[in-house]
Amino acid sequence: MGISDVFDPSGIAVIGASATPGKLGNDAMANAKEFDGPVYPVNPSGEGEVYGYEFVDSVEETDADLALCCVPAPATPDVLEECGEAGVGAAVVFAGGFAESGPDGVELQAEVEAIAEEYDIAVLGPNTAGHIIPHKQIFSSFVPGFDEIETGDVAIVAQSGGVGVTSTFQLEREGYGVSGMYGLGNRVNTDFADVIPTLDEDPQTKAIGLHIEGTAEIDRFVDVVESAETPIVALKSGNQMRDFVQAHTAAPTQEYGRYEEVITDNGGVMADSVTELLDASRVLGKSPVPDGPNVGIVTAQAGPGIMMADYLADRGVEFPDLTSETQERLDDLLLGFTYDENPVDTGRPMPEFGEVIDAVARDENIDIVLVYEIFEHSLGYPVEELEQLANDLDKPIVFTVAGPYDALEPDRKRMEELGIPTFDAPERGAYATSVLVDSIR
Amino acid sequence: MGISDVFDPSGIAVIGASATPGKLGNDAMANAKEFDGPVYPVNPSGEGEVYGYEFVDSVEETDADLALCCVPAPATPDVLEECGEAGVGAAVVFAGGFAESGPDGVELQAEVEAIAEEYDIAVLGPNTAGHIIPHKQIFSSFVPGFDEIETGDVAIVAQSGGVGVTSTFQLEREGYGVSGMYGLGNRVNTDFADVIPTLDEDPQTKAIGLHIEGTAEIDRFVDVVESAETPIVALKSGNQMRDFVQAHTAAPTQEYGRYEEVITDNGGVMADSVTELLDASRVLGKSPVPDGPNVGIVTAQAGPGIMMADYLADRGVEFPDLTSETQERLDDLLLGFTYDENPVDTGRPMPEFGEVIDAVARDENIDIVLVYEIFEHSLGYPVEELEQLANDLDKPIVFTVAGPYDALEPDRKRMEELGIPTFDAPERGAYATSVLVDSIR
Repeated sequence: MGISDVFDPSGIAVIGASATPGKLGNDAMANAKEFDGPVYPVNPSGEGEVYGYEFVDSVEETDADLALCCVPAPATPDVLEECGEAGVGAAVVFAGGFAESGPDGVELQAEVEAIAEEYDIAVLGPNTAGHIIPHKQIFSSFVPGFDEIETGDVAIVAQSGGVGVTSTFQLEREGYGVSGMYGLGNRVNTDFADVIPTLDEDPQTKAIGLHIEGTAEIDRFVDVVESAETPIVALKSGNQMRDFVQAHTAAPTQEYGRYEEVITDNGGVMADSVTELLDASRVLGKSPVPDGPNVGIVTAQAGPGIMMADYLADRGVEFPDLTSETQERLDDLLLGFTYDENPVDTGRPMPEFGEVIDAVARDENIDIVLVYEIFEHSLGYPVEELEQLANDLDKPIVFTVAGPYDALEPDRKRMEELGIPTFDAPERGAYATSVLVDSIR
Repeated sequence: MGISDVFDPSGIAVIGASATPGKLGNDAMANAKEFDGPVYPVNPSGEGEVYGYEFVDSVEETDADLALCCVPAPATPDVLEECGEAGVGAAVVFAGGFAESGPDGVELQAEVEAIAEEYDIAVLGPNTAGHIIPHKQIFSSFVPGFDEIETGDVAIVAQSGGVGVTSTFQLEREGYGVSGMYGLGNRVNTDFADVIPTLDEDPQTKAIGLHIEGTAEIDRFVDVVESAETPIVALKSGNQMRDFVQAHTAAPTQEYGRYEEVITDNGGVMADSVTELLDASRVLGKSPVPDGPNVGIVTAQAGPGIMMADYLADRGVEFPDLTSETQERLDDLLLGFTYDENPVDTGRPMPEFGEVIDAVARDENIDIVLVYEIFEHSLGYPVEELEQLANDLDKPIVFTVAGPYDALEPDRKRMEELGIPTFDAPERGAYATSVLVDSIR
């Protein structure tokens, strides 16, 4: 019962399921149908089947423990009561029109909360896009296309379903997937503090990305963040638009500083945009914790290397001298070619590029390696050397890719499998590196 | 003769062409072969054909006016002299090892410069990735995959070939292409000031994105920027890493402020990253000049809308009240649904979303419209309403897309054709909008 049925349901009921394309209850069924267990479209006026599942009249006829409520706000209390009677432990309430919409909505939400308490139902929402857990084939959302999201190692917990959805599609587009996306909405009884501990225990989740507008449960939030061992990144929005935020997920607006303090004190970072939220989560989820803040840059193209070095120097990151041993090795490899200090610039991709990375990565003065290379078909990326390094060392390597994307994709995927996070613009690789530095500052 | 042969060659010679895959002279042929005119692989030791073109012994046997020099630095002066004798007007010198590499290189570059002057040859480089002009099927570069770059409406002029290449592939990956990419490298006699005026006249080029490390020709730079009518965006790098920059394209480092002043005084903007360079160029290239700085936000999802509003408010952008006429129209459309002030939030995509955009876009208080909507298959994007607006008004509309990318792509392309630039993360749509505001400040 309760929150565990959000994460591990044994059966899913879609209440208000519909056979009519474009209806919420149809979109929800299109996603829910992927579940590898019983799925029940519930609708007393439904006839025949939808996506191969036969309509049932009532949730009481099912043994679902997770219910997706595709009904308007005013019908929600009755539906939730039926769920309670039927032994459903968790319900996702998509409808808006609750606390975010004024006094009547506040009253309706209180009703929902009371029923949820009475029956011990964990309610996700109301006013949410739902949640997905691709590795468990749970797609508990009305968002079209969500059933195609692949498994990744970052979980997104978003106060705004819209931000959660956007983040999920961006991760999917860039080839990473998610370990889960949880849209919290109005948080009637399922808040950040209820979701984070389970994600912290989830072996598929290597980092947790939060989108926060504000929660009254900030003390519980602080407690769970302090206890979590999984890296956490937070994007706090609504700092300027307070009226708009209140009208959105009924969030109390709080000082940015309280969130920042607890996140950064516990090895996490604050992000300023969706892209930063995703990139920071990915790099912290993938990388070992660096032993120190010293960055070694290896670039096959000077121009982007300069931009990355600029970016990091602007943020106070240091590029220490390489040891004389490393410099000798580089001189042998590069024959005085371009720039053999730190940053190391090979001028263009070359067969020895992997060895150059190896030399810098094994340097005791270097804690984090940032690499930039435009992909060339005839050379590929130096995945063999990187595999050796990943086996031998426990040192973060951030690889910034560029070039013809279809061609570079197999090598990029292989690097991700090796625990080397990849980024696709100079500033994104540099940002990810700054996140690693900040995480131990 | 001279610079015009960079832009409009009638024949291309690839000097040092090779039939061996992975060699520079083979990679250059793989791109050059796309040209819709004679292409000559020049190599006295070449036998038979490469990419269907028969080897010739010497450039003098060709009537090429553009030569791609795929030879090492020390061989360059001789090759360039042969080009001069053969009447070649422009040469691209890929090799490094000139002024960026120390005293010997400086001398070698001076030799190249003297020969170029003697024969009136426009030299792109040395130390460049070359240039491409997809709509003229000119792919004068060794970068593998460049022959597949599509035509767009932004030209990139990059001091660093690496930044030019990265920018080009990023624009291609995101579905936009380029009107040209020019890697300037060491700028022996072809500098920003030699390229910008022609691009300013090019009907395919709607905006020019510059990557600058520094040029001794800054007075000429200022003159051409002041004369140009095409919007210009500049990314000035190397502000921190002066030694590294000097070792790169032999660039004198100058104050950021001099570039900033001339760019911003002439309606352009300074970018801080590759992504900003591309996004700013795209939005200025696509949009009409706004009549004022007042932004109207229309969002189908509150969370991303709040983030965009935050972003803009942080940068001092104003969201004026809508007229009472617009508010009445919105009340009819939205029936009190969520947030009908500016920002206007429809809560989720709906059939009336296009009409909501229409209402805000026609509001006399609004100069720039910023839209955010996660794509839903059953609704699509409101392209019909946007087409009507594009016909009726001369007001910038920035459309921020999100969702299942394959599904949204046709509508996104259609919007681009209508002159509505599209961006794919909340902060990128907001940034593009801030660029429009800054361009008239």
